[in-house]
Amino acid sequence: MSQIVGIVGVGLIGGSLGLDLLKQGVQVLGFDKNKKVPAHKHCVSAFVDSVAELTSRADTILIATPVSALPALFKQLQACPGIEKKILSDVGSVKQEVIEIANDVFGEVPPRFIPGHPLAGREKNTAASAQEGLFAGKRVLLTPVETSEVAALEQIQTLWQSVGARPETIDPIKHDKVLAVTSHLPHLLAYSLIHFIADKDQKGTLSNYAAGGFKDFTRIAASDPDMWREISLVNRENILEAITDFQAHLNSLSTALETWDDDKIQTFFSRAQRYKNHSDEQ
Amino acid sequence: MSQIVGIVGVGLIGGSLGLDLLKQGVQVLGFDKNKKVPAHKHCVSAFVDSVAELTSRADTILIATPVSALPALFKQLQACPGIEKKILSDVGSVKQEVIEIANDVFGEVPPRFIPGHPLAGREKNTAASAQEGLFAGKRVLLTPVETSEVAALEQIQTLWQSVGARPETIDPIKHDKVLAVTSHLPHLLAYSLIHFIADKDQKGTLSNYAAGGFKDFTRIAASDPDMWREISLVNRENILEAITDFQAHLNSLSTALETWDDDKIQTFFSRAQRYKNHSDEQ
Repeated sequence: MSQIVGIVGVGLIGGSLGLDLLKQGVQVLGFDKNKKVPAHKHCVSAFVDSVAELTSRADTILIATPVSALPALFKQLQACPGIEKKILSDVGSVKQEVIEIANDVFGEVPPRFIPGHPLAGREKNTAASAQEGLFAGKRVLLTPVETSEVAALEQIQTLWQSVGARPETIDPIKHDKVLAVTSHLPHLLAYSLIHFIADKDQKGTLSNYAAGGFKDFTRIAASDPDMWREISLVNRENILEAITDFQAHLNSLSTALETWDDDKIQTFFSRAQRYKNHSDEQ
Repeated sequence: MSQIVGIVGVGLIGGSLGLDLLKQGVQVLGFDKNKKVPAHKHCVSAFVDSVAELTSRADTILIATPVSALPALFKQLQACPGIEKKILSDVGSVKQEVIEIANDVFGEVPPRFIPGHPLAGREKNTAASAQEGLFAGKRVLLTPVETSEVAALEQIQTLWQSVGARPETIDPIKHDKVLAVTSHLPHLLAYSLIHFIADKDQKGTLSNYAAGGFKDFTRIAASDPDMWREISLVNRENILEAITDFQAHLNSLSTALETWDDDKIQTFFSRAQRYKNHSDEQ
């Protein structure tokens, strides 16, 4: 593992990674353009004042900013002397867009840039919510491209393993398609359900009549609107396809209810329950 | 409180109530038509062999069976001598239907029958999953009708308070409308999402690429298909209306994505997040 890890963007993911790396005895430098973040000094060994300073001192640079910050950030990194020797990775929830931005700015995906995505998001995503052990047992999806350096990939894998995570490689196109279904669509459904309820329930009392299942189901609707606007737009084609497919299934259930087709309803619920129980066991 | 409580249907709800009442020193008789249930003898003081025996010995009878069992069960109860003196309640997830069944069988809603619904359901709903403290802090929605006896209502309120629950009265029509939105619709959405994923994912590996939010969001899709087929059909008019309303909100979000309307997406997510955070605080 490299001696010095630099983290750009010290929020939930960056801050939690910092905490875990510190515990391993790794020296961690942090940079965040939000001037309030360095108050959370326990997350890193030290905060630095610029991307240039961080790049000059760190061997590996983890970018944990929103994807929308990447074009400007990649330009700053590109201007740093010796950047081509550094190992870079990111944590964005979409991967094709990140690869395209890197391509645009650097003229290629830098061989030592390994795009990544730890499946460890939470509703609260600021440095204040950073916590030790966030990545324990969690998958980190890495999407190297054909020209990526194997040694860089291995370093990033080792880094994530050192904090208890389970790195896996996956094709970036597949990543974005799969996450549209398993993460982005559920968030949009939860937001839509709560938006519907908010509309119906001017007094804000409707959720008094909700059991534990509702709280869990809608937990992700407390997620950061900025982050999810960005993800939704960046991955919108996959998400729109997922919404259409989902609606077809919901409509077939609606039709079964309208026509009192109890066999079909039973089969529908049973199949879903079986898949859910099976996948939970994995 | 009555000296002897009889519980018909010793599953998650009936069994958990039995456990809590036993702890209060209340004598609890159980009956379940499933011959395997009496193996869970720790849930009650004793199992009896028939509804008639339970009714002859208990002062208060809690019916914790599926709603579909009520027509036959009410007929059995009606045939029991002295049934009009007993205090009755149930725990069904829909209330208008229960009231109609009571009306049909008894010719009126018995004055001492107080329909009820503890908001304490879980995915596992058998006696094996019964647990102490299930009702602590949970709302129990009681839907007395105009001819209900106040003394009976008070007894049922006291019974639920004794196990730490928070009984509230609500109009049965409102109950079914509200629960269609806060409970039934979320279950149908979770089943539909998982059904869609099961269809797409023959290998069953897709949920490997899901984070914690997905597990919580889809937890309720592990619920009992029999129970949810029944609830869906019994409350189908309210549920179909809720599905239509929900789809309008999801469609407006889809349209905002299609037209890259980032302001609208931001407003949509922000409004949902604010409502969610506000209602969680209550």
